Amino acid sequence: MKNILIIGCGLLGSSLLRRIHKKRLAHKIFVYEKSKKNISKIKKLKLPGILVKKPEDVVSKSNLIIFCTPMSEYKKIILKMNNNFHSKHIITDIGSSKIKSLKIINKNLKKGIYWSSSHPIAGSEVSGPENGKQNLFENKWCVLINGKRSNKTHLNFLKSFWRKMGSKTTEMSPNKHDKIFSITSHLPHLIAYNLVKSAQDFEKKQKYDLLKYSAGGLRDFSRIAASNEIMWRDIFFDNKTNVSKAINLFIKNLKSFKNDISSENNKSILRKLTHTKKVRSRIIKLKQDINKPDFGRD
Amino acid sequence: MKNILIIGCGLLGSSLLRRIHKKRLAHKIFVYEKSKKNISKIKKLKLPGILVKKPEDVVSKSNLIIFCTPMSEYKKIILKMNNNFHSKHIITDIGSSKIKSLKIINKNLKKGIYWSSSHPIAGSEVSGPENGKQNLFENKWCVLINGKRSNKTHLNFLKSFWRKMGSKTTEMSPNKHDKIFSITSHLPHLIAYNLVKSAQDFEKKQKYDLLKYSAGGLRDFSRIAASNEIMWRDIFFDNKTNVSKAINLFIKNLKSFKNDISSENNKSILRKLTHTKKVRSRIIKLKQDINKPDFGRD
Repeated sequence: MKNILIIGCGLLGSSLLRRIHKKRLAHKIFVYEKSKKNISKIKKLKLPGILVKKPEDVVSKSNLIIFCTPMSEYKKIILKMNNNFHSKHIITDIGSSKIKSLKIINKNLKKGIYWSSSHPIAGSEVSGPENGKQNLFENKWCVLINGKRSNKTHLNFLKSFWRKMGSKTTEMSPNKHDKIFSITSHLPHLIAYNLVKSAQDFEKKQKYDLLKYSAGGLRDFSRIAASNEIMWRDIFFDNKTNVSKAINLFIKNLKSFKNDISSENNKSILRKLTHTKKVRSRIIKLKQDINKPDFGRD
Repeated sequence: MKNILIIGCGLLGSSLLRRIHKKRLAHKIFVYEKSKKNISKIKKLKLPGILVKKPEDVVSKSNLIIFCTPMSEYKKIILKMNNNFHSKHIITDIGSSKIKSLKIINKNLKKGIYWSSSHPIAGSEVSGPENGKQNLFENKWCVLINGKRSNKTHLNFLKSFWRKMGSKTTEMSPNKHDKIFSITSHLPHLIAYNLVKSAQDFEKKQKYDLLKYSAGGLRDFSRIAASNEIMWRDIFFDNKTNVSKAINLFIKNLKSFKNDISSENNKSILRKLTHTKKVRSRIIKLKQDINKPDFGRD
Protein backbone atom coordinates (compact mmCIF):
# COMPACT_ATOMS: atom_id res chain seq x y z
CA MET A 1 0.00 0.00 0.00
CA LYS A 2 1.15 3.53 -0.62
CA ASN A 3 -0.40 6.33 1.41
CA ILE A 4 -3.20 6.27 3.97
CA LEU A 5 -5.31 9.19 5.17
CA ILE A 6 -6.91 8.89 8.60
CA ILE A 7 -9.69 11.41 9.22
CA GLY A 8 -10.34 11.86 12.94
CA CYS A 9 -7.63 10.81 15.36
CA GLY A 10 -9.43 9.80 18.56
CA LEU A 11 -9.41 6.38 20.22
CA LEU A 12 -9.95 4.36 17.03
CA GLY A 13 -8.16 6.62 14.55
CA SER A 14 -5.04 6.81 16.72
CA SER A 15 -5.12 3.03 17.25
CA LEU A 16 -5.15 2.51 13.47
CA LEU A 17 -2.35 5.05 13.15
CA ARG A 18 -0.20 3.23 15.72
CA ARG A 19 -0.83 -0.16 14.11
CA ILE A 20 -0.24 0.95 10.52
CA HIS A 21 3.00 2.61 11.60
CA LYS A 22 4.18 -0.37 13.66
CA LYS A 23 3.48 -2.85 10.86
CA ARG A 24 4.93 -0.46 8.23
CA LEU A 25 1.84 -0.78 6.09
CA ALA A 26 2.04 2.62 4.41
CA HIS A 27 4.60 4.84 2.77
CA LYS A 28 3.02 7.95 4.26
CA ILE A 29 0.23 8.29 6.84
CA PHE A 30 -1.72 11.54 6.71
CA VAL A 31 -3.73 12.46 9.77
CA TYR A 32 -6.52 15.01 9.92
CA GLU A 33 -7.93 16.01 13.29
CA LYS A 34 -10.40 18.84 13.90
CA SER A 35 -10.05 19.31 17.65
CA LYS A 36 -7.23 21.59 18.83
CA LYS A 37 -7.10 19.70 22.11
CA ASN A 38 -6.55 16.40 20.32
CA ILE A 39 -3.95 17.95 17.98
CA SER A 40 -1.86 19.09 20.92
CA LYS A 41 -2.23 15.63 22.52
CA ILE A 42 -1.07 13.99 19.26
CA LYS A 43 1.99 16.25 19.19
CA LYS A 44 2.78 15.66 22.86
CA LEU A 45 2.44 11.88 22.40
CA LYS A 46 4.74 12.13 19.37
CA LEU A 47 2.41 9.90 17.37
CA PRO A 48 3.63 8.95 13.90
CA GLY A 49 2.09 10.34 10.69
CA ILE A 50 1.84 13.73 9.03
CA LEU A 51 -0.74 16.09 10.53
CA VAL A 52 -2.65 17.92 7.79
CA LYS A 53 -4.81 21.01 8.17
CA LYS A 54 -7.27 20.14 5.40
CA PRO A 55 -8.00 16.54 4.46
CA GLU A 56 -8.95 17.58 0.92
CA ASP A 57 -5.36 18.73 0.30
CA VAL A 58 -3.94 15.21 0.54
CA VAL A 59 -6.76 13.18 -1.02
CA SER A 60 -5.03 12.96 -4.38
CA LYS A 61 -1.90 11.63 -2.66
CA SER A 62 -3.82 9.00 -0.68
CA ASN A 63 -4.82 5.47 -1.70
CA LEU A 64 -6.83 4.44 1.35
CA ILE A 65 -9.02 6.93 3.24
CA ILE A 66 -10.49 5.99 6.61
CA PHE A 67 -13.18 8.09 8.30
CA CYS A 68 -12.84 7.81 12.10
CA THR A 69 -14.85 10.85 13.16
CA PRO A 70 -18.31 10.73 14.79
CA MET A 71 -20.84 9.83 12.06
CA SER A 72 -22.49 13.26 12.26
CA GLU A 73 -19.27 14.77 10.81
CA TYR A 74 -19.19 12.67 7.60
CA LYS A 75 -21.39 14.86 5.41
CA LYS A 76 -19.47 18.10 5.98
CA ILE A 77 -16.13 16.42 5.28
CA ILE A 78 -17.38 14.54 2.20
CA LEU A 79 -18.66 17.76 0.64
CA LYS A 80 -15.22 19.34 1.07
CA MET A 81 -13.42 16.32 -0.38
CA ASN A 82 -15.76 15.41 -3.25
CA ASN A 83 -13.83 17.36 -5.89
CA ASN A 84 -10.67 15.45 -5.12
CA PHE A 85 -12.16 11.97 -4.88
CA HIS A 86 -11.41 9.41 -7.59
CA SER A 87 -13.07 6.05 -8.28
CA LYS A 88 -9.79 4.31 -7.40
CA HIS A 89 -9.81 5.69 -3.88
CA ILE A 90 -10.59 3.03 -1.33
CA ILE A 91 -12.80 4.82 1.17
CA THR A 92 -14.11 3.35 4.40
CA ASP A 93 -15.37 4.43 7.81
CA ILE A 94 -15.59 2.81 11.21
CA GLY A 95 -19.08 3.97 12.27
CA SER A 96 -21.15 1.76 14.57
CA SER A 97 -24.44 1.94 12.64
CA LYS A 98 -24.93 1.82 8.92
CA ILE A 99 -28.39 2.29 7.38
CA LYS A 100 -28.75 6.01 7.92
CA SER A 101 -25.09 6.95 7.70
CA LEU A 102 -24.83 5.13 4.34
CA LYS A 103 -27.94 6.95 3.13
CA ILE A 104 -26.28 10.28 3.91
CA ILE A 105 -23.06 9.12 2.27
CA ASN A 106 -24.96 7.90 -0.80
CA LYS A 107 -26.73 11.25 -1.07
CA ASN A 108 -23.65 13.43 -0.69
CA LEU A 109 -20.77 11.43 -2.17
CA LYS A 110 -19.93 12.34 -5.76
CA LYS A 111 -21.25 9.91 -8.39
CA GLY A 112 -18.84 7.18 -9.43
CA ILE A 113 -17.00 7.15 -6.10
CA TYR A 114 -17.10 3.99 -3.95
CA TRP A 115 -17.50 3.77 -0.20
CA SER A 116 -16.98 0.37 1.45
CA SER A 117 -17.94 0.70 5.08
CA SER A 118 -16.32 -1.11 8.05
CA HIS A 119 -17.27 -1.64 11.67
CA PRO A 120 -14.52 -2.90 13.94
CA ILE A 121 -16.11 -4.23 17.17
CA ALA A 122 -13.51 -2.62 19.39
CA GLY A 123 -13.58 0.28 21.76
CA SER A 124 -13.84 1.30 25.36
CA GLU A 125 -15.55 3.84 27.59
CA VAL A 126 -12.55 6.13 27.15
CA SER A 127 -11.85 8.24 24.08
CA GLY A 128 -9.12 10.46 22.65
CA PRO A 129 -5.73 9.77 21.04
CA GLU A 130 -4.05 9.22 24.43
CA ASN A 131 -6.10 6.05 24.93
CA GLY A 132 -5.47 4.43 21.54
CA LYS A 133 -3.28 1.36 21.26
CA GLN A 134 -1.89 -0.63 18.36
CA ASN A 135 -3.48 -3.90 19.48
CA LEU A 136 -6.99 -2.48 19.96
CA PHE A 137 -8.34 -4.58 17.07
CA GLU A 138 -6.50 -7.80 17.94
CA ASN A 139 -8.82 -10.83 17.77
CA LYS A 140 -11.86 -8.56 17.44
CA TRP A 141 -14.44 -8.88 14.68
CA CYS A 142 -14.54 -6.32 11.91
CA VAL A 143 -17.76 -6.27 9.90
CA LEU A 144 -17.46 -5.21 6.25
CA ILE A 145 -20.64 -3.78 4.72
CA ASN A 146 -21.83 -4.63 1.24
CA GLY A 147 -23.99 -1.58 0.55
CA LYS A 148 -25.14 0.39 -2.50
CA ARG A 149 -21.83 2.21 -2.97
CA SER A 150 -19.46 -0.56 -1.93
CA ASN A 151 -17.01 -2.13 -4.37
CA LYS A 152 -16.15 -5.84 -4.33
CA THR A 153 -12.42 -5.29 -4.99
CA HIS A 154 -12.26 -2.59 -2.32
CA LEU A 155 -14.06 -4.83 0.18
CA ASN A 156 -11.52 -7.60 -0.47
CA PHE A 157 -8.70 -5.14 -0.02
CA LEU A 158 -10.26 -3.93 3.25
CA LYS A 159 -10.64 -7.50 4.53
CA SER A 160 -6.95 -8.00 4.11
CA PHE A 161 -6.28 -4.58 5.69
CA TRP A 162 -8.34 -5.36 8.81
CA ARG A 163 -6.65 -8.75 9.14
CA LYS A 164 -3.36 -6.87 9.30
CA MET A 165 -4.93 -4.80 12.08
CA GLY A 166 -5.36 -8.12 13.92
CA SER A 167 -9.10 -8.54 13.27
CA LYS A 168 -11.28 -11.39 12.08
CA THR A 169 -13.56 -10.22 9.25
CA THR A 170 -17.10 -10.94 8.10
CA GLU A 171 -19.48 -9.37 5.59
CA MET A 172 -23.07 -8.17 6.12
CA SER A 173 -25.76 -5.99 4.57
CA PRO A 174 -26.38 -2.64 6.33
CA ASN A 175 -29.79 -3.96 7.34
CA LYS A 176 -28.54 -7.14 9.01
CA HIS A 177 -25.70 -5.21 10.65
CA ASP A 178 -27.97 -2.62 12.24
CA LYS A 179 -30.42 -5.24 13.49
CA ILE A 180 -27.71 -7.35 15.14
CA PHE A 181 -25.90 -4.43 16.76
CA SER A 182 -29.11 -2.83 17.99
CA ILE A 183 -29.28 -5.83 20.33
CA THR A 184 -25.65 -6.69 21.07
CA SER A 185 -24.35 -3.16 21.48
CA HIS A 186 -26.76 -0.24 21.14
CA LEU A 187 -29.43 -1.50 23.55
CA PRO A 188 -26.85 -2.53 26.21
CA HIS A 189 -25.35 0.95 26.13
CA LEU A 190 -28.75 2.62 26.30
CA ILE A 191 -29.71 0.37 29.21
CA ALA A 192 -26.50 1.24 31.05
CA TYR A 193 -27.11 4.98 30.58
CA ASN A 194 -30.70 4.53 31.69
CA LEU A 195 -29.77 2.57 34.81
CA VAL A 196 -27.32 5.24 35.92
CA LYS A 197 -29.94 7.93 35.20
CA SER A 198 -32.47 6.00 37.32
CA ALA A 199 -29.97 5.70 40.17
CA GLN A 200 -29.39 9.45 39.99
CA ASP A 201 -33.13 10.15 40.10
CA PHE A 202 -33.54 7.81 43.06
CA GLU A 203 -30.62 9.38 44.92
CA LYS A 204 -32.03 12.85 44.41
CA LYS A 205 -35.45 11.82 45.69
CA GLN A 206 -34.35 9.66 48.62
CA LYS A 207 -31.27 11.69 49.56
CA TYR A 208 -29.34 8.46 50.16
CA ASP A 209 -25.64 8.34 49.46
CA LEU A 210 -26.05 5.18 47.41
CA LEU A 211 -22.99 5.26 45.16
CA LYS A 212 -20.91 4.15 48.14
CA TYR A 213 -22.59 0.80 47.71
CA SER A 214 -22.38 0.51 43.94
CA ALA A 215 -20.07 -2.52 43.95
CA GLY A 216 -23.09 -4.82 43.87
CA GLY A 217 -23.78 -4.23 40.18
CA LEU A 218 -24.29 -0.53 39.40
CA ARG A 219 -20.53 0.02 39.18
CA ASP A 220 -20.16 -2.08 36.02
CA PHE A 221 -22.97 -0.22 34.28
CA SER A 222 -21.51 3.17 35.23
CA ARG A 223 -18.36 2.28 33.33
CA ILE A 224 -20.32 1.64 30.13
CA ALA A 225 -22.39 4.77 30.75
CA ALA A 226 -19.22 6.88 30.76
CA SER A 227 -18.73 6.38 27.00
CA ASN A 228 -18.47 9.26 24.55
CA GLU A 229 -21.79 11.10 24.31
CA ILE A 230 -21.44 12.44 20.74
CA MET A 231 -20.63 9.01 19.36
CA TRP A 232 -23.56 7.42 21.18
CA ARG A 233 -26.05 10.13 20.27
CA ASP A 234 -25.10 9.59 16.62
CA ILE A 235 -25.57 5.81 16.95
CA PHE A 236 -28.95 6.05 18.72
CA PHE A 237 -30.27 8.58 16.18
CA ASP A 238 -28.79 6.72 13.19
CA ASN A 239 -30.24 3.36 14.17
CA LYS A 240 -33.42 4.67 15.78
CA THR A 241 -35.89 2.25 14.16
CA ASN A 242 -34.06 -0.86 15.35
CA VAL A 243 -33.16 0.66 18.72
CA SER A 244 -36.82 1.58 19.32
CA LYS A 245 -37.88 -1.98 18.50
CA ALA A 246 -35.22 -3.29 20.87
CA ILE A 247 -36.50 -0.98 23.63
CA ASN A 248 -40.05 -2.27 23.09
CA LEU A 249 -38.92 -5.88 23.37
CA PHE A 250 -36.90 -5.02 26.47
CA ILE A 251 -39.85 -3.29 28.18
CA LYS A 252 -42.19 -6.17 27.30
CA ASN A 253 -39.80 -8.67 28.90
CA LEU A 254 -39.18 -6.45 31.91
CA LYS A 255 -42.91 -6.23 32.57
CA SER A 256 -43.12 -10.01 32.44
CA PHE A 257 -40.27 -10.21 34.99
CA LYS A 258 -42.12 -7.72 37.17
CA ASN A 259 -45.26 -9.88 37.03
CA ASP A 260 -43.26 -12.95 38.05
CA ILE A 261 -41.85 -11.04 41.00
CA SER A 262 -45.15 -9.50 42.12
CA SER A 263 -46.97 -12.83 41.97
CA GLU A 264 -43.93 -14.78 43.25
CA ASN A 265 -44.24 -17.08 40.23
CA ASN A 266 -41.45 -19.47 41.15
CA LYS A 267 -41.62 -21.68 38.05
CA SER A 268 -41.68 -18.82 35.57
CA ILE A 269 -38.86 -16.79 37.17
CA LEU A 270 -36.56 -19.82 37.57
CA ARG A 271 -37.14 -20.70 33.91
CA LYS A 272 -35.99 -17.18 32.96
CA LEU A 273 -33.01 -17.10 35.34
CA THR A 274 -31.67 -20.51 34.32
CA HIS A 275 -32.34 -20.02 30.60
CA THR A 276 -30.29 -16.80 30.45
CA LYS A 277 -27.34 -18.63 32.01
CA LYS A 278 -26.92 -20.67 28.85
CA VAL A 279 -25.96 -17.58 26.87
CA ARG A 280 -22.90 -17.09 29.04
CA SER A 281 -21.29 -20.42 28.16
CA ARG A 282 -21.99 -19.83 24.46
CA ILE A 283 -20.33 -16.39 24.65
CA ILE A 284 -17.27 -17.94 26.26
CA LYS A 285 -17.15 -20.72 23.65
CA LEU A 286 -17.28 -18.04 20.95
CA LYS A 287 -14.27 -16.36 22.64
CA GLN A 288 -16.16 -13.12 23.17
CA ASP A 289 -15.16 -13.18 26.84
CA ILE A 290 -12.90 -15.20 29.09
CA ASN A 291 -14.12 -17.81 31.56
CA LYS A 292 -12.72 -16.13 34.62
CA PRO A 293 -14.97 -15.01 37.45
CA ASP A 294 -15.10 -11.32 38.14
CA PHE A 295 -14.96 -10.24 41.77
CA GLY A 296 -14.57 -6.57 40.91
CA ARG A 297 -11.43 -4.92 39.65
CA ASP A 298 -8.79 -3.93 42.22
CA MET B 1 -13.65 -16.08 70.02
CA LYS B 2 -14.30 -19.71 70.72
CA ASN B 3 -16.29 -21.71 68.16
CA ILE B 4 -17.99 -20.63 64.95
CA LEU B 5 -20.72 -22.46 63.05
CA ILE B 6 -21.06 -21.70 59.32
CA ILE B 7 -24.36 -22.86 57.82
CA GLY B 8 -24.10 -23.20 54.04
CA CYS B 9 -20.65 -23.50 52.51
CA GLY B 10 -20.93 -22.01 49.01
CA LEU B 11 -19.04 -19.02 47.65
CA LEU B 12 -19.52 -16.79 50.70
CA GLY B 13 -19.59 -19.47 53.41
CA SER B 14 -16.37 -21.04 52.17
CA SER B 15 -14.72 -17.63 51.87
CA LEU B 16 -15.56 -16.93 55.54
CA LEU B 17 -14.27 -20.38 56.44
CA ARG B 18 -10.95 -19.77 54.67
CA ARG B 19 -10.51 -16.34 56.26
CA ILE B 20 -11.44 -17.41 59.79
CA HIS B 21 -9.03 -20.33 59.51
CA LYS B 22 -6.22 -18.23 58.04
CA LYS B 23 -6.55 -15.53 60.71
CA ARG B 24 -7.00 -18.17 63.46
CA LEU B 25 -10.11 -16.47 64.72
CA ALA B 26 -11.81 -19.54 66.16
CA HIS B 27 -10.96 -22.52 68.31
CA LYS B 28 -13.22 -24.76 66.22
CA ILE B 29 -15.08 -24.04 62.98
CA PHE B 30 -18.17 -26.19 62.37
CA VAL B 31 -19.48 -26.34 58.82
CA TYR B 32 -22.93 -27.48 57.77
CA GLU B 33 -23.64 -27.99 54.08
CA LYS B 34 -26.81 -29.55 52.66
CA SER B 35 -25.69 -30.33 49.09
CA LYS B 36 -23.89 -33.63 48.60
CA LYS B 37 -22.10 -32.19 45.58
CA ASN B 38 -20.72 -29.32 47.66
CA ILE B 39 -19.74 -31.67 50.51
CA SER B 40 -17.61 -33.74 48.17
CA LYS B 41 -16.06 -30.55 46.75
CA ILE B 42 -15.24 -29.36 50.30
CA LYS B 43 -13.55 -32.69 51.06
CA LYS B 44 -11.64 -32.68 47.78
CA LEU B 45 -10.48 -29.10 48.37
CA LYS B 46 -9.41 -30.12 51.90
CA LEU B 47 -11.04 -27.01 53.32
CA PRO B 48 -10.51 -26.48 57.06
CA GLY B 49 -13.29 -26.92 59.63
CA ILE B 50 -15.38 -29.79 60.96
CA LEU B 51 -18.19 -30.92 58.67
CA VAL B 52 -21.36 -31.64 60.67
CA LYS B 53 -24.42 -33.54 59.52
CA LYS B 54 -26.94 -31.55 61.56
CA PRO B 55 -26.30 -27.94 62.53
CA GLU B 56 -28.53 -28.30 65.62
CA ASP B 57 -26.07 -30.82 67.08
CA VAL B 58 -23.28 -28.23 67.45
CA VAL B 59 -25.31 -25.13 68.35
CA SER B 60 -24.64 -25.48 72.08
CA LYS B 61 -20.91 -25.69 71.36
CA SER B 62 -20.92 -22.58 69.09
CA ASN B 63 -20.61 -18.92 70.02
CA LEU B 64 -21.09 -17.32 66.62
CA ILE B 65 -23.52 -18.75 64.05
CA ILE B 66 -23.49 -17.46 60.47
CA PHE B 67 -26.24 -18.33 57.97
CA CYS B 68 -24.78 -18.44 54.45
CA THR B 69 -27.54 -20.41 52.68
CA PRO B 70 -30.03 -18.93 50.21
CA MET B 71 -32.59 -16.91 52.21
CA SER B 72 -35.39 -19.33 51.37
CA GLU B 73 -33.64 -21.97 53.53
CA TYR B 74 -33.54 -19.92 56.75
CA LYS B 75 -36.97 -20.87 58.13
CA LYS B 76 -36.50 -24.64 57.90
CA ILE B 77 -33.10 -24.49 59.59
CA ILE B 78 -34.22 -22.07 62.32
CA LEU B 79 -37.09 -24.37 63.28
CA LYS B 80 -34.66 -27.27 63.68
CA MET B 81 -32.21 -25.22 65.75
CA ASN B 82 -34.65 -23.25 67.93
CA ASN B 83 -34.51 -25.69 70.86
CA ASN B 84 -30.76 -25.33 71.10
CA PHE B 85 -30.52 -21.55 70.69
CA HIS B 86 -29.55 -19.41 73.67
CA SER B 87 -29.78 -15.62 74.08
CA LYS B 88 -25.97 -15.47 74.26
CA HIS B 89 -25.61 -16.91 70.77
CA ILE B 90 -24.47 -14.31 68.28
CA ILE B 91 -26.48 -15.14 65.18
CA THR B 92 -26.13 -13.44 61.81
CA ASP B 93 -26.75 -14.08 58.12
CA ILE B 94 -25.35 -12.69 54.88
CA GLY B 95 -28.58 -12.33 52.85
CA SER B 96 -28.82 -9.60 50.23
CA SER B 97 -32.26 -8.29 51.19
CA LYS B 98 -33.64 -7.77 54.64
CA ILE B 99 -37.26 -6.65 55.16
CA LYS B 100 -39.00 -9.91 54.31
CA SER B 101 -36.26 -12.30 55.44
CA LEU B 102 -36.18 -10.56 58.85
CA LYS B 103 -39.98 -10.84 59.08
CA ILE B 104 -39.70 -14.60 58.56
CA ILE B 105 -36.86 -14.80 61.09
CA ASN B 106 -38.84 -12.73 63.59
CA LYS B 107 -41.84 -15.00 63.17
CA ASN B 108 -39.98 -18.30 63.50
CA LEU B 109 -37.03 -17.60 65.78
CA LYS B 110 -37.67 -18.59 69.43
CA LYS B 111 -38.51 -15.70 71.76
CA GLY B 112 -35.56 -14.18 73.59
CA ILE B 113 -33.06 -15.10 70.87
CA TYR B 114 -31.23 -12.31 68.98
CA TRP B 115 -30.47 -12.13 65.27
CA SER B 116 -28.17 -9.38 64.06
CA SER B 117 -28.15 -9.46 60.28
CA SER B 118 -25.20 -8.67 57.98
CA HIS B 119 -24.84 -7.99 54.28
CA PRO B 120 -21.30 -8.13 52.91
CA ILE B 121 -21.26 -6.44 49.48
CA ALA B 122 -19.06 -9.09 47.95
CA GLY B 123 -19.66 -11.83 45.44
CA SER B 124 -19.35 -12.86 41.85
CA GLU B 125 -21.31 -14.54 39.09
CA VAL B 126 -19.79 -17.86 40.16
CA SER B 127 -20.90 -19.90 43.17
CA GLY B 128 -19.84 -22.98 45.11
CA PRO B 129 -17.04 -23.68 47.64
CA GLU B 130 -14.46 -24.08 44.85
CA ASN B 131 -14.75 -20.37 44.03
CA GLY B 132 -14.45 -18.99 47.57
CA LYS B 133 -11.34 -17.09 48.62
CA GLN B 134 -10.10 -15.71 51.92
CA ASN B 135 -9.82 -12.14 50.62
CA LEU B 136 -13.33 -11.99 49.12
CA PHE B 137 -14.41 -9.36 51.69
CA GLU B 138 -11.24 -7.25 51.55
CA ASN B 139 -12.02 -3.52 51.28
CA LYS B 140 -15.70 -4.30 50.61
CA TRP B 141 -18.54 -2.77 52.60
CA CYS B 142 -20.44 -4.91 55.08
CA VAL B 143 -23.81 -3.48 56.14
CA LEU B 144 -24.98 -4.37 59.68
CA ILE B 145 -28.73 -4.26 60.18
CA ASN B 146 -30.38 -2.78 63.27
CA GLY B 147 -33.69 -4.61 63.16
CA LYS B 148 -36.31 -5.75 65.66
CA ARG B 149 -34.35 -8.76 66.88
CA SER B 150 -30.84 -7.31 66.70
CA ASN B 151 -28.72 -6.76 69.79
CA LYS B 152 -26.41 -3.76 70.25
CA THR B 153 -23.59 -5.80 71.82
CA HIS B 154 -23.87 -8.46 69.14
CA LEU B 155 -23.81 -5.81 66.39
CA ASN B 156 -20.64 -4.32 67.88
CA PHE B 157 -19.09 -7.77 68.03
CA LEU B 158 -20.05 -8.39 64.40
CA LYS B 159 -18.57 -5.05 63.29
CA SER B 160 -15.27 -6.11 64.72
CA PHE B 161 -15.68 -9.59 63.17
CA TRP B 162 -16.29 -8.19 59.66
CA ARG B 163 -13.33 -5.85 60.01
CA LYS B 164 -11.23 -8.94 60.63
CA MET B 165 -12.71 -10.32 57.40
CA GLY B 166 -11.19 -7.23 55.74
CA SER B 167 -14.43 -5.23 55.38
CA LYS B 168 -15.46 -1.67 56.12
CA THR B 169 -18.69 -1.62 58.16
CA THR B 170 -21.76 0.57 58.35
CA GLU B 171 -25.18 0.28 60.04
CA MET B 172 -28.63 0.66 58.47
CA SER B 173 -32.30 -0.10 59.10
CA PRO B 174 -33.76 -2.97 57.02
CA ASN B 175 -35.90 -0.42 55.22
CA LYS B 176 -33.04 1.86 54.16
CA HIS B 177 -30.93 -1.17 53.22
CA ASP B 178 -33.55 -2.66 50.92
CA LYS B 179 -34.25 0.68 49.23
CA ILE B 180 -30.57 1.36 48.49
CA PHE B 181 -29.78 -2.13 47.25
CA SER B 182 -32.90 -2.31 45.09
CA ILE B 183 -31.18 0.35 42.97
CA THR B 184 -27.46 -0.42 43.31
CA SER B 185 -27.68 -4.20 43.03
CA HIS B 186 -31.10 -5.82 42.54
CA LEU B 187 -32.24 -3.70 39.58
CA PRO B 188 -28.85 -3.99 37.78
CA HIS B 189 -29.01 -7.78 38.04
CA LEU B 190 -32.62 -7.89 36.86
CA ILE B 191 -31.73 -5.62 33.94
CA ALA B 192 -28.82 -7.86 32.99
CA TYR B 193 -31.01 -10.97 33.05
CA ASN B 194 -33.65 -9.13 31.05
CA LEU B 195 -31.20 -7.92 28.42
CA VAL B 196 -29.88 -11.43 27.86
CA LYS B 197 -33.46 -12.72 27.68
CA SER B 198 -34.29 -10.06 25.07
CA ALA B 199 -31.22 -11.01 23.03
CA GLN B 200 -32.33 -14.65 23.13
CA ASP B 201 -35.85 -13.74 21.98
CA PHE B 202 -34.43 -11.61 19.17
CA GLU B 203 -32.04 -14.37 18.08
CA LYS B 204 -34.84 -16.91 17.98
CA LYS B 205 -37.04 -14.62 15.90
CA GLN B 206 -34.39 -13.32 13.49
CA LYS B 207 -32.32 -16.50 13.29
CA TYR B 208 -29.14 -14.40 13.43
CA ASP B 209 -26.06 -15.76 15.13
CA LEU B 210 -25.65 -12.62 17.17
CA LEU B 211 -23.63 -13.82 20.15
CA LYS B 212 -20.55 -13.86 17.92
CA TYR B 213 -20.74 -10.09 18.07
CA SER B 214 -21.46 -9.69 21.78
CA ALA B 215 -18.18 -7.91 22.58
CA GLY B 216 -19.88 -4.55 21.96
CA GLY B 217 -21.72 -4.56 25.31
CA LEU B 218 -23.90 -7.66 25.68
CA ARG B 219 -20.93 -9.71 26.88
CA ASP B 220 -20.59 -7.77 30.15
CA PHE B 221 -24.27 -8.19 30.93
CA SER B 222 -24.15 -11.92 30.22
CA ARG B 223 -21.56 -12.31 32.96
CA ILE B 224 -23.86 -10.72 35.54
CA ALA B 225 -26.81 -12.75 34.19
CA ALA B 226 -24.92 -15.97 34.89
CA SER B 227 -25.31 -15.49 38.67
CA ASN B 228 -26.93 -18.10 40.91
CA GLU B 229 -30.65 -18.36 40.12
CA ILE B 230 -31.87 -19.51 43.57
CA MET B 231 -30.10 -16.67 45.33
CA TRP B 232 -31.49 -14.10 42.91
CA ARG B 233 -35.04 -15.47 42.91
CA ASP B 234 -34.96 -15.16 46.70
CA ILE B 235 -33.71 -11.57 46.51
CA PHE B 236 -36.26 -10.48 43.90
CA PHE B 237 -39.16 -12.06 45.83
CA ASP B 238 -37.90 -10.83 49.20
CA ASN B 239 -37.50 -7.21 48.07
CA LYS B 240 -40.37 -7.19 45.60
CA THR B 241 -41.94 -3.87 46.64
CA ASN B 242 -38.73 -1.88 46.18
CA VAL B 243 -37.68 -3.83 43.09
CA SER B 244 -41.07 -3.17 41.46
CA LYS B 245 -40.73 0.55 42.19
CA ALA B 246 -37.24 0.49 40.70
CA ILE B 247 -38.57 -1.23 37.56
CA ASN B 248 -41.26 1.45 37.20
CA LEU B 249 -38.70 4.24 37.47
CA PHE B 250 -36.47 2.44 34.97
CA ILE B 251 -39.29 1.99 32.42
CA LYS B 252 -40.35 5.64 32.81
CA ASN B 253 -36.80 6.81 32.07
CA LEU B 254 -36.39 4.34 29.20
CA LYS B 255 -39.55 5.66 27.54
CA SER B 256 -38.18 9.18 27.84
CA PHE B 257 -34.93 8.02 26.18
CA LYS B 258 -37.00 6.39 23.42
CA ASN B 259 -38.84 9.68 22.85
CA ASP B 260 -35.57 11.57 22.59
CA ILE B 261 -34.33 9.06 20.02
CA SER B 262 -37.55 8.98 17.95
CA SER B 263 -37.78 12.76 17.80
CA GLU B 264 -33.99 13.18 17.52
CA ASN B 265 -34.09 15.59 20.46
CA ASN B 266 -30.44 16.54 20.49
CA LYS B 267 -30.49 18.81 23.55
CA SER B 268 -32.40 16.38 25.75
CA ILE B 269 -30.38 13.29 24.87
CA LEU B 270 -27.01 15.05 25.26
CA ARG B 271 -28.14 16.30 28.67
CA LYS B 272 -28.86 12.70 29.69
CA LEU B 273 -25.66 11.23 28.21
CA THR B 274 -23.36 13.83 29.76
CA HIS B 275 -25.14 13.90 33.13
CA THR B 276 -24.74 10.14 33.64
CA LYS B 277 -21.00 10.46 33.04
CA LYS B 278 -20.65 12.35 36.33
CA VAL B 279 -21.64 9.27 38.29
CA ARG B 280 -18.59 7.42 37.01
CA SER B 281 -16.06 9.82 38.50
CA ARG B 282 -17.90 9.79 41.82
CA ILE B 283 -17.83 5.97 41.88
CA ILE B 284 -14.09 6.00 41.25
CA LYS B 285 -13.55 8.65 43.97
CA LEU B 286 -15.50 6.41 46.38
CA LYS B 287 -13.13 3.55 45.45
CA GLN B 288 -15.97 1.35 44.22
CA ASP B 289 -14.09 0.76 40.98
CA ILE B 290 -10.68 1.54 39.53
CA ASN B 291 -9.98 4.27 37.00
CA LYS B 292 -8.61 1.98 34.31
CA PRO B 293 -10.29 1.73 30.93
CA ASP B 294 -11.77 -1.61 30.00
CA PHE B 295 -11.12 -2.86 26.48
CA GLY B 296 -12.54 -6.31 27.17
CA ARG B 297 -10.83 -9.03 29.16
CA ASP B 298 -8.26 -11.17 27.33
